[in-house]
Amino acid sequence: MHIVADENIPLLNEFFADFGDITLVEGRSMTAADLAGADILLVRSVTRVDAQLLAGSQVKFVGTATIGTDHIDRAYLEEAGIGFKSAPGCNAQAVVDYVLSALSVLVDERGIGFTDVTVGIVGVGSVGWLLRRRLEEMGVTVLATDPFKNPDEVGELVSLDEVLGADVVTLHTPLTRDGEHPTWHLIDEQRLAQMKPDASLINAGRGAVVDNAALLAHMQKNRDFEAILDVWENEPELDLQLMQRCLLATPHIAGYSLDGKMRGTEYVYQGLCEFFGLPVRRKLAQFLPEPGVKRVNFSDQVPVYQALRTAIRACYEIRVDDGVMRTAMKRSDNLKATFDQMRKNYPLRRDIPTLRVGVPAKCHDLHEALSAAGFDVRTK
Amino acid sequence: MHIVADENIPLLNEFFADFGDITLVEGRSMTAADLAGADILLVRSVTRVDAQLLAGSQVKFVGTATIGTDHIDRAYLEEAGIGFKSAPGCNAQAVVDYVLSALSVLVDERGIGFTDVTVGIVGVGSVGWLLRRRLEEMGVTVLATDPFKNPDEVGELVSLDEVLGADVVTLHTPLTRDGEHPTWHLIDEQRLAQMKPDASLINAGRGAVVDNAALLAHMQKNRDFEAILDVWENEPELDLQLMQRCLLATPHIAGYSLDGKMRGTEYVYQGLCEFFGLPVRRKLAQFLPEPGVKRVNFSDQVPVYQALRTAIRACYEIRVDDGVMRTAMKRSDNLKATFDQMRKNYPLRRDIPTLRVGVPAKCHDLHEALSAAGFDVRTK
Ligand SMILES: NC(=O)c1ccc[n+]([C@@H]2O[C@H](COP(=O)([O-])OP(=O)(O)OC[C@H]3O[C@@H](n4cnc5c(N)ncnc54)[C@H](O)[C@@H]3O)[C@@H](O)[C@H]2O)c1
Ligand SMILES: NC(=O)c1ccc[n+]([C@@H]2O[C@H](COP(=O)([O-])OP(=O)(O)OC[C@H]3O[C@@H](n4cnc5c(N)ncnc54)[C@H](O)[C@@H]3O)[C@@H](O)[C@H]2O)c1
Repeated sequence: MHIVADENIPLLNEFFADFGDITLVEGRSMTAADLAGADILLVRSVTRVDAQLLAGSQVKFVGTATIGTDHIDRAYLEEAGIGFKSAPGCNAQAVVDYVLSALSVLVDERGIGFTDVTVGIVGVGSVGWLLRRRLEEMGVTVLATDPFKNPDEVGELVSLDEVLGADVVTLHTPLTRDGEHPTWHLIDEQRLAQMKPDASLINAGRGAVVDNAALLAHMQKNRDFEAILDVWENEPELDLQLMQRCLLATPHIAGYSLDGKMRGTEYVYQGLCEFFGLPVRRKLAQFLPEPGVKRVNFSDQVPVYQALRTAIRACYEIRVDDGVMRTAMKRSDNLKATFDQMRKNYPLRRDIPTLRVGVPAKCHDLHEALSAAGFDVRTK
Repeated sequence: MHIVADENIPLLNEFFADFGDITLVEGRSMTAADLAGADILLVRSVTRVDAQLLAGSQVKFVGTATIGTDHIDRAYLEEAGIGFKSAPGCNAQAVVDYVLSALSVLVDERGIGFTDVTVGIVGVGSVGWLLRRRLEEMGVTVLATDPFKNPDEVGELVSLDEVLGADVVTLHTPLTRDGEHPTWHLIDEQRLAQMKPDASLINAGRGAVVDNAALLAHMQKNRDFEAILDVWENEPELDLQLMQRCLLATPHIAGYSLDGKMRGTEYVYQGLCEFFGLPVRRKLAQFLPEPGVKRVNFSDQVPVYQALRTAIRACYEIRVDDGVMRTAMKRSDNLKATFDQMRKNYPLRRDIPTLRVGVPAKCHDLHEALSAAGFDVRTK
């Protein structure tokens, strides 16, 4: 078989060389002519995949190593009987790590532990569900809401009103403007007023799910209310005053891990194997490089909360990204360019499960808490 | 020999049992009667040691497991031919760790590395000298000033004016009001104006070395100027507005490590051995408990600056103390009680040299930087 692929997809040879030749092309400028003889097309979000690109080709399968599928005319693919696979949830772990690092800062700021806060999750999809599992295993009380999900699949669900009573509310919905439950400005002046005056709001979903002007106004009136934002309304032209008032501010990088990016390729590979009825021979773990921080060993002298915080931040220190963003934006005279640069040059981090953590065999609590948070825990 | 000792000195039996019987007494209420038959007296800062306590006793040696000696009438001891040892510098490493953790936050906030800043050190005594050595070995440019020291002993010295031109200025002098170089309000409105508008000031020496009102006024005019304060004018009744404007604020705990506290006992033990001409048989390392975070392993994938920051903060995360203090002081209606409580209940940390760090044999830069910072680096 012949494969045509965007040259910027990682691990192409590692995953796909067995299927046949791979021709690499520049994704942005790809045209129908590039697909001559191709059976398989692999793209990223910069390539528009529709009749104009595919009609007349012999492409049987299209894979996009991305979560979003806005660049794909899925109706056309279906009509034409072309197989399709995207990579939803490939970076869910990275976003969970982001939220855990944010939570570790929040609890530190208040001198409390993880299990002393109630976390409300809005949207129990790939990210929200994994987050819920991790937190519940860590012993944190979770309140979750999702009008489109079934409690049999994602665990107990409550109303949005109930979720808003949590100490920390974290948003993991897409941005929608239509239907019965649109998320545009889901968190507005009125909903903010429903929250505890010293609650914290995390948004690593989509910027406009929160009315950003209302959030700033709310925080100007409520000194103890904190916000941690990775996504912004009118991004990248965000409100600098809001950024300054946030406890933590980051440039839409919650999902940016090396593991997540490479997992996108793996998901497409798995889809392709399934479509052609071939065995799944390759696993991402074979190809991942060693993490920079390989192992942290704790003794029986460490309190659980300190071990959690040390291990989480050894993997991902959210305050580094916060510091870089504040400084860069404050000094910028072109917010859009600065924001985009930060995302483009972002040093991809590694997911929590890549960090091996050593604990003494007798420390069951420590073992349990660190495993629950997702670490690769070993006893010595 | 017979020893009378303050019951709150750590490791008394471990270090002193060989010399004879030890009678433990409550330091605050110690009287001459407690010293009947005593040859050796070991105290902390809560016991006033003078003629009233000692006259008529057979005490030959007094040791205080503290840096300060304000509670000791040293002239009387000399007159009476009584040996004496205090523990200057026993917690210098802890203060160095504090400054390194603070520097790691400062460089993160600005998205730069340790070697991108020039550090000015005011006061090159126990703390200043150790800090200078560590920073210079790490490749950081240091400017140091100390009118009472000889460059042959502590390295090149420059004028205070030159030191004030550094990116970060850190203060390690005692508080003095007399003599040729008093330190009271050494850093005042005029000296602040000499500093770079985006410089940072660290004070882990004594509060009133900085004119705190002038500092707040300076920061209100200079948005990019940052302060990191562990010691405060009028402590514990400090200026909350200043605290809020500080990048990092801590309650006079820079020197609070378990290692430092126990090293105080070791120094007194060494002084006693010397005084009586006995061999030094005991070493602190025999008695120290295991640290909570025992080891961190890095791979060749980690950039040096990230390894440094991860290892430093695995040992000491200054932002935890900052968060606890902000929250506690904001909610307090008795600043003195709250400040004292925080110090009293402080969970003693471990010094940087207690953390073992593993690096690949081929990573010389990594090895060098981490050793320079004081870690116990091992190659695998
Ligand atoms: N910041 C980042 O870097 C980053 C990274 C990954 C994903 N995301 C974003 O995070 C969001 C979640 O990602 P995901 O992979 O979990 O998506 P997903 O599609 O798997 O899950 C979204 C969930 O939100 C639910 N939902 C929709 N409308 C809702 C409403 N009104 N109230 C409550 N729930 C509602 C859906 O039913 C679904 O379960 C998406 O918007 C995604 O774009 C951001
Ligand atoms: N924050 C804490 O928890 C903590 C812990 C330890 C020490 N300290 C304080 O830090 C300071 C330094 O501690 P140390 O153990 O290094 O003391 P030290 O006595 O060994 O060193 C102090 C140095 O300051 C110098 N000095 C005096 N006046 C000066 C001036 N005008 N300009 C420049 N230098 C001057 C002295 O010559 C001396 O070298 C002391 O005030 C100590 O009380 C605070």
